[in-house]
Amino acid sequence: MLKPLGDRIVIETVEKEEKTASGIVLPDSAKEKPQEGRVVAAGTGRVTDSGERVALEVSEGDHVIFSKYAGTEVKYDGKEYLILRQDDILAVVE
Amino acid sequence: MLKPLGDRIVIETVEKEEKTASGIVLPDSAKEKPQEGRVVAAGTGRVTDSGERVALEVSEGDHVIFSKYAGTEVKYDGKEYLILRQDDILAVVE
Amino acid sequence: MLKPLGDRIVIETVEKEEKTASGIVLPDSAKEKPQEGRVVAAGTGRVTDSGERVALEVSEGDHVIFSKYAGTEVKYDGKEYLILRQDDILAVVE
Amino acid sequence: MLKPLGDRIVIETVEKEEKTASGIVLPDSAKEKPQEGRVVAAGTGRVTDSGERVALEVSEGDHVIFSKYAGTEVKYDGKEYLILRQDDILAVVE
Amino acid sequence: MLKPLGDRIVIETVEKEEKTASGIVLPDSAKEKPQEGRVVAAGTGRVTDSGERVALEVSEGDHVIFSKYAGTEVKYDGKEYLILRQDDILAVVE
Amino acid sequence: MLKPLGDRIVIETVEKEEKTASGIVLPDSAKEKPQEGRVVAAGTGRVTDSGERVALEVSEGDHVIFSKYAGTEVKYDGKEYLILRQDDILAVVE
Amino acid sequence: MLKPLGDRIVIETVEKEEKTASGIVLPDSAKEKPQEGRVVAAGTGRVTDSGERVALEVSEGDHVIFSKYAGTEVKYDGKEYLILRQDDILAVVE
Repeated sequence: MLKPLGDRIVIETVEKEEKTASGIVLPDSAKEKPQEGRVVAAGTGRVTDSGERVALEVSEGDHVIFSKYAGTEVKYDGKEYLILRQDDILAVVE
Repeated sequence: MLKPLGDRIVIETVEKEEKTASGIVLPDSAKEKPQEGRVVAAGTGRVTDSGERVALEVSEGDHVIFSKYAGTEVKYDGKEYLILRQDDILAVVE
Repeated sequence: MLKPLGDRIVIETVEKEEKTASGIVLPDSAKEKPQEGRVVAAGTGRVTDSGERVALEVSEGDHVIFSKYAGTEVKYDGKEYLILRQDDILAVVE
Repeated sequence: MLKPLGDRIVIETVEKEEKTASGIVLPDSAKEKPQEGRVVAAGTGRVTDSGERVALEVSEGDHVIFSKYAGTEVKYDGKEYLILRQDDILAVVE
Repeated sequence: MLKPLGDRIVIETVEKEEKTASGIVLPDSAKEKPQEGRVVAAGTGRVTDSGERVALEVSEGDHVIFSKYAGTEVKYDGKEYLILRQDDILAVVE
Repeated sequence: MLKPLGDRIVIETVEKEEKTASGIVLPDSAKEKPQEGRVVAAGTGRVTDSGERVALEVSEGDHVIFSKYAGTEVKYDGKEYLILRQDDILAVVE
Repeated sequence: MLKPLGDRIVIETVEKEEKTASGIVLPDSAKEKPQEGRVVAAGTGRVTDSGERVALEVSEGDHVIFSKYAGTEVKYDGKEYLILRQDDILAVVE
């Protein structure tokens, strides 16, 4: 099992259709496209400058959207994961 | 539903006429142009270095103006949203 | 009405004669020239790392001088405004 | 009157002979040359991350030396001033 | 014995097969590949801005995954180690 | 008299032989060479983010070694001084 | 005697064989090589943002490993020293 440290999260990425429904390329290419995944494991939280540990807002099983170029790819036990910081997670899909 | 984390905000953008009333390009191009939208969901707030969570100043339904190149475009349930940090929001239109 | 967030200020800019009285270009061009305006609305203040909100030093009606390239131009209700952070304001003209 | 905000200082610059007594250019050009001036007005001080306001160390009338390229030139009421942060002031001449 | 300072960790790296099972190069080369190792020694922890020492989350013997280009190679007593900061460790393998 | 502000120090530099005893250029040119001087005046200290003033570690008359390219040259009363921050001082020679 | 300030350390460097035992150049040249030395003097410690002084973890006589390009070379009393910050020290060799 992968146990991330601090404010890091282990994510199993979800393949996402890159084309829009109408097949048209979006005009504003300056904006980055996000990626989806499922939280496999979450760290114990970030320690603030005052020495307090702040619990993470996501937990195992959460379906999340994150910045596409964030994190580090990790291959473990034959499967691929992405380890990123909670700050790279944009939103939880409920 | 998209539930943003921390100080992030989910916004439904509003199309805005790019030309001025007179159709004249503004002389001072060094200044960036803002964009408008409506807040769909707001995070739980930023955690300061002293470990305190500061509630966000905007909430669902607010009409906001934000920096044009801020945030990440997210396509969810057939609609497009923009997820950005509260700090990228310039003002609430009341 | 535009209600700025945090330490942001909405300003109605004032046109300012760019030439000096004698019409001579100033020799030291390394220094940036400021711009003038009137405060239309001020945010609720900046939140420090210790979670305390610090009230702004300017308020509606103040005549201020600010760094020329600061802020974002916002067109609202047919008029143009500039939204900037209080830190970009150099001084209040009394 | 110009009332600077926070840790900003309004200064009336003093012309300073740029040549050395012997007229020789200083060999170590990597070091920046300072400039002199008189404090016309001082802000209310900087607010620390803990929300405390720290009073400025200079006050009206002080003769100060500051980094040459610091600050913003402001023309007000026919006279030129320089507005800079206290941190750009190197020393008070007593 | 190597006793790391602060939030530093001494690691004995583990050789890791660089090819994927199918031998196919991963399409997204923008993401960095991690490296594995075993913790040989851990520092006394980071001191926060409030002067509190935060104990490290890893300890001797832990099998860890870290960012490939992190740290400094140290040759000691005929063996090679890597000294990095705990923040460069992505996860503990359990 | 020059009274430096905050964590600044006024130094009277000491000429230092640039060649080594043997006249050989040092092989590792990546490292910067320091300079010597005597403390003429020291500021009242740095104010931390918690609003506390930390007294300086050097005082008038101290013989100090500092980073060669640090600080600003000031000509005052016919003599040349260097004003730098205490953080640029490497050590006191006792 | 050289008395370093704050979190600085005076080190007498130790010559270290640059070749590996087998004489083979290490394949991963992206990683920096460390250097060894002995602590001659240590400062009084770093002052945190909360105004607390944190004692250093090394003391006179410690055999340390540090980042090769850290610090400033100081020639004092005919001998060469290196003054660096404690943060540049990777580990103490015990």
